[in-house]
Order: sequence, then C-alpha cells, then structure tokens
Amino acid sequence: MPSVELITTGSELLSGRTVNTHARTLAEKLRPFGLKLVRDTTVTDDLGAITDAVRGALSRVDIVFVSGGLGGTSDDITRDALAQIVGGNLVPHPESLVALEQRYAAMGRPVTDVARRQALILERGEGLLNPAGIAPGMAIPFGEKMIFVLPGPPREFSAVLETGIFPRLGNMGLPVFQALENLLECTGLGETEIAERLEKIGLPTPEIEVGYCAASGQVEVRLIAAPKNAALLEEKTVAVRAVLGAAIYAETRIGLEETVGRLLAAQHKTLAIAESCTGGLIGHRLTSIAGSSAYFLGGVIAYSNDSKVRDLGVPRELIERHGAVSEEVARAMAEGVRARFGTDFGVAVTGIAGPDGGTAAKPVGTVWLAVADAAGTVAKLRCFPTTRDHVKLWSSQQALDLLRRRLQGLSAAPGATPGRPSW
Amino acid sequence: MPSVELITTGSELLSGRTVNTHARTLAEKLRPFGLKLVRDTTVTDDLGAITDAVRGALSRVDIVFVSGGLGGTSDDITRDALAQIVGGNLVPHPESLVALEQRYAAMGRPVTDVARRQALILERGEGLLNPAGIAPGMAIPFGEKMIFVLPGPPREFSAVLETGIFPRLGNMGLPVFQALENLLECTGLGETEIAERLEKIGLPTPEIEVGYCAASGQVEVRLIAAPKNAALLEEKTVAVRAVLGAAIYAETRIGLEETVGRLLAAQHKTLAIAESCTGGLIGHRLTSIAGSSAYFLGGVIAYSNDSKVRDLGVPRELIERHGAVSEEVARAMAEGVRARFGTDFGVAVTGIAGPDGGTAAKPVGTVWLAVADAAGTVAKLRCFPTTRDHVKLWSSQQALDLLRRRLQGLSAAPGATPGRPSW
Repeated sequence: MPSVELITTGSELLSGRTVNTHARTLAEKLRPFGLKLVRDTTVTDDLGAITDAVRGALSRVDIVFVSGGLGGTSDDITRDALAQIVGGNLVPHPESLVALEQRYAAMGRPVTDVARRQALILERGEGLLNPAGIAPGMAIPFGEKMIFVLPGPPREFSAVLETGIFPRLGNMGLPVFQALENLLECTGLGETEIAERLEKIGLPTPEIEVGYCAASGQVEVRLIAAPKNAALLEEKTVAVRAVLGAAIYAETRIGLEETVGRLLAAQHKTLAIAESCTGGLIGHRLTSIAGSSAYFLGGVIAYSNDSKVRDLGVPRELIERHGAVSEEVARAMAEGVRARFGTDFGVAVTGIAGPDGGTAAKPVGTVWLAVADAAGTVAKLRCFPTTRDHVKLWSSQQALDLLRRRLQGLSAAPGATPGRPSW
Repeated sequence: MPSVELITTGSELLSGRTVNTHARTLAEKLRPFGLKLVRDTTVTDDLGAITDAVRGALSRVDIVFVSGGLGGTSDDITRDALAQIVGGNLVPHPESLVALEQRYAAMGRPVTDVARRQALILERGEGLLNPAGIAPGMAIPFGEKMIFVLPGPPREFSAVLETGIFPRLGNMGLPVFQALENLLECTGLGETEIAERLEKIGLPTPEIEVGYCAASGQVEVRLIAAPKNAALLEEKTVAVRAVLGAAIYAETRIGLEETVGRLLAAQHKTLAIAESCTGGLIGHRLTSIAGSSAYFLGGVIAYSNDSKVRDLGVPRELIERHGAVSEEVARAMAEGVRARFGTDFGVAVTGIAGPDGGTAAKPVGTVWLAVADAAGTVAKLRCFPTTRDHVKLWSSQQALDLLRRRLQGLSAAPGATPGRPSW
C-alpha cells in the first residue's frame, strides 16, 4: 500500500482546547483507495516548524497532505512555508476569487486585502475550489512526489478532499488500488478471544490483513485484501462468521442501538425500557437514531425503589427480599414496563454503578439485565469491575445485545457467576 | 515557556477508527506548569518509525512524552524502541509486577509471559506505577533531556500523568513555573459575546492571558497569569464576574449536571425529570455523578403522546390543541413528573430533534423546556437549527441551566422567538 503522511498546522490544536480529527477523517477516506496513513503530525503556526515537518514527510513518503493555515490573517502561513519548499510565487486562484467576491457581496461586506489573501495559491500548484468555504486547496507536484493542501476547518477539509482530491487520485499515475474490506461488528467476545479464534482458522494470512478496534463492549473486526484476492477474502469471511457466530451483530459500521432499531422496525415491534443504574443512557442511545419514535415508545428511569414499585409494579417485598439489584427485580421491571407501555418488548437494567454501594456478594459493577416479551422473560447477570461511566456504558451494551439476540431468535450469551468479574 | 513534544504510537490511531485525544489532554494539563506542547506526532507500531520520531523530538525539545505500545503483545514495541535510543536492558518493575499478579489472581487467570511483559521498564529509567491499569509509565533521563513514557489508553494516560509525572515536574530542575489560572464555566452566552464583553473591560492584557473553549451550550473562560501578577489576576477576575454575571455557573471544571447536583444536595432538594426529545440524556448526565441517587429519584422518558398522558398526566386535549412541542405541554410534563415522583423539582423537555418532523412554525430544533417547583413553573423556548445529536445535547444543557438558575434564585436566561434560531 502506498504510504501517506498528514501534517496539520494550528496552535489551537496544541493548546488543550481542540481535538484534531483530521487523521481519522483522512485515514478512513483513503482506505478504499488503498492508501495508508503512516504518520500524523500537528505543529504550531510557525514557519520553521511547518517547513521542517513537510520536508521530513517528503523524505519518507510519496504523498503528503498539509492542512490548515490557509486563512487571510498573519498566523496563516502555510502557503509561505510551501513556497519556501517548492519555490515560485503566490498567485490568485481565479475561480476562488470570484466565489469569494460573490460571497462577500451577499453578506454586504467589502472585499479587503486580508480577505483576498485567502484565494492565493502557489503558481506551481493547481487550485482546488473549496465548496464549503473560501480558501482553495492545492495539488502541488514536487518531483515524483505530490503535496495536497487542504483547509483546516473539518467541514472544508472533507469537502475539498471529496471534490478536489479523490477525483484526481485515480488519474495521478500512482500505484493505487481499491482495497476490499469486510467489516464484522461484534459484541459479547473480547478482542483477545476473537483474535485467538481467528488464529485457529489461519488468520491473518499474507493476503488477508486483519484489523481490530475494541471499544466498551464491542469489537470491530476488519478483513482487508487486494482486489485480486476477492475470492479468498469471501472464503475467509465465511469462516470468520462461523467461528464468531452470534457475537457478530452487524456487517456495516453501526452501533447496537441502530441494529436493534432496524430489527424492531423490520419486525413492526415496539419497545419500552426500565432503567435503574444506566439512568437514561439506553433511552439516549436508542433516540440518537432518527426515526426511533416509530418503535421506541419511552420508558421509566426508576432511580429509586419507590419508582420501581409505583411506576413499574415491582412488588415491594421482592425488593426487600432480594435487593433492588437482583434477577427477580430485573425481571419484574422488564415485565412491568412492557405492561405499562403496552409494547412488544420490555428491557430492564438494575445494577451497582459505584463507586459506593458494593458488597462482597454484589460488588460494584454487578448488573442484572432482563428482556420481556410475549414468550417470556430472559435475565442475565454481568459484573463489570470498572468505573461508574464504564459500568453504565457496558450495561447499556449488554442490554441492547440481549434484546438484539431475542429479536434475532438467538439464545442469550453466557452470564456471570455471582461476585466474579465478567466482561 | 519550555517546549514539549508528544509522540503516540498506535496503528489503530491512523486507521480511521479512533481519534487521538492525548494532545488535548496533555496540553491542557501542562499549561499550569508553564510547559507548552509544540508538536504532536502519531506513528504506526513500527520500530523504525518510533525511534525516528523520538530522535527527531529529542533534537528539538528538552521534554518528550511518548505514549502507547506498552502492552504485552508483539506489536507493543515502544520499550524496545526506547532501549535502542537510550541503551540498557529491560527489567521488571517490582511494584507493577506485584499489582499485576494480584489483579490476575482476582480474576482467576494465570500470569503468562505475555502478561508479565507488561510490567517491564528500561533499567535506565524509573517506573511509574499505573493506578488505572497494568503497564507502568517511565521517567527516563537522556543527557540533559527527559523522556516520559505513558500507557496509551486515555484513562491510564491521564492517571500516570497525574500520579507519576506531575509530582516530579517540580523537582526536575526544569525552568517551570506554576502559572495561575482562574476558570469560569459559562452557559447561555456564546464565545464571541463573551470575548466582546471581556474586550470592553480591557482583556486580554500583556499580563493576563485569556483562553476560551466552547462546547455545545457552554464556554470555558480561563484567565491565566504568572504568579507575580496574582493581584492583577484577582482584580480582573472580579471584573469578569461582573460582566458575565449569571452566565457563570461554576468556577471549577465541572459540568452543569454536577453543578445542579451539588446545589440539590446542599439544599436537600429532590428532582424528577420528564424527557421527550432528549430521550434519557438528561437522566444519563445526572446519573453520571456519583451519589446522584441522594437527590435524583428518576423520571419518565415520554417518547410517545400516550406516555405523556398516561405517565405524566398531561391532558390529551392540551396535546391536541397546542401540539406535543408547546409551552403548555412542557409545563404540564414538568408539573406531572414532579407530582408523580413527589419531588421538590420537576424538569421537562419536549422538542423536535429532527431530521424530520419540522414545520415552518416549529422548525427542527424547536424545544420547550420547563422547571416546576412549589413556587410555580417556568418555561422557555429555544431553537437550535442543527443536527439531531446537537439538538439533544443543547436541550439537555438548557434544561439543566434552567434548573440551575432556579436553584440559585436567578431569573431564566432570555428565550427564543417562535420559529427563529437561538443558541
């Protein structure tokens, strides 16, 4: 795979205030072209630092992306830094100048010299019109190498990448190819466990690269191959499906909330939730999906025992006998919210998010999950010995997955032993 | 200011999946020590790339932070790269090895050689116990320079920074100074509006630096000065308090959920919430605070009209006459949830999160917020013409702020005109 480096200039990105997301955007968008980002460098708005970083990248790779510092003010010096490296003058980019003048006229503002400076490009490069802003990008040949220049604001960065650069990549005489990638989104298995299962079926191979990305309660597995190995990729993907089985919840990059939403919508089913330790997180995740009101009717945040009794119909003596964090109460909550909302499914979570409230028998991170439907109720114990935020997040993942498996007619993943950690 | 560079290793950070947030964390935490981050480099897990990047940084600055690649698997090679640069062997860090063995014993897992590798450090450096994980950090003197090594996972990165590195910074003989910083967390005013008000009172000055950090619905203002200008800093902070007034919700770095939680706890008041378009987000935020069950009793996610009527006692004819997104319904929801839960306060949100469901009179982003208590009910209209996620986030901010002002005896911030954007 041809290698690429990215250099971003911007003191604000090194001040502790803003996170630089360009590397993620670029890497993701380069992947289908078979280009691999190997280094990401952020430097301050300093002429020496910018030229040093760009020269370093040009010594290592054939394609260098440079972003930021294309505005009209005194700290926007990327053009000057590049002119020092490749030589030549700065000249106006006619298309961008016209667009700039139209834009300023529409706002009723005069076009100052500072404004006009934004439309300058290197005469040795080609200007790339910026459909989301003013400053154009640039494609600058440098010997056998190529420098692509992009504006810094993320929306403009993406826009120039899509409209100005990608259409040129295929025509550049670069040895690029369209890499094939199969995605498998998994939950209920750890990254190590997945890697061990894949090793047993001989993955990775020299032809099939395997990538992993683990987040709380889910792992993305990517199988990547060159187009000539398409048949092998499909064969290996089938094998991976067999060894991961029900742990695979999707084969596109979507979360469990959207997976569950699509299943509910497709099956014309409705859902209500009863949240204790997650405090609203599951509802928040479900309603982050546009159109969720078609299947999600609402729920109860039962953060007190009174609410569990009054709003969900949990018998008080059940709480007194087994505790609020128990299989019995989780089941009653799921059945209670289903009955109250008149939905096809009721989902419940009750647990100890911590940092206080744990005991030897029920340590912090102990969570009971339940899903009720017309056929009955399934409940599951988990124990996530971690921080409050993570207990909440893992619990929401597991609750959504318990529902996902129910919707797909699969059995629940194994639960935990009381008092022992499980992930 | 002494300069610092950061190098992070991790192919997953260059794959398009994960955003690298270390630079923001580090820069923010270094600021009070008078240390400035000038370059942030991310490289793949490649021995040559790591040594090249570390050597480059050592040629430019006196303090280099290196993060990532400290696990036990074959792609964790940061220790080897550093050993190539500074020389010497890898040796176990006794404290970390003991912690590792205890941890594995608690999980009932055997301590393999791969696991033990995580506790290795350079014999020429000092191990820094990792309170949030297994792999220790390191402080490695290199001639007159210093290399600090940190684990890659963000929680561990921050933990070792706080417990292992900052206590050493003052004792390193480096020309660092403890800059003074006053924080003002604001909501209800935009960054530009705040900057204009500060300019009118002569800020920034050569002695008082002003930093801004805007996120959805809140702006952090930082006034920074050298210790010799402490008196001037206090004087200017008093002036800033006067011009920003009730927009300041805290003077430490806490969110609105914690601010509201502290006010409720201090006043021995209780809260219940009725969420429509926010779908559980406000409950999720409130319950992210440890101990929130002392004042937060729960709520209703009323994502359907039936739920608003059945669970909150909103008269159905109110919804039919004014629509679910209306002042009348918001008020009835706040009063209804307060009555149901028997709390001192009831908070309600009803709005159009989009992308569908907007009309000319009530465009996407139209949100009604209400707070009910024994003295009556306040309601407020806002319109956030943005994406679904942001409408939800802004709505939660505004609802928490409406409650905050009520708890502090302040009047509500001005609302919007129907159909017109407001932030």
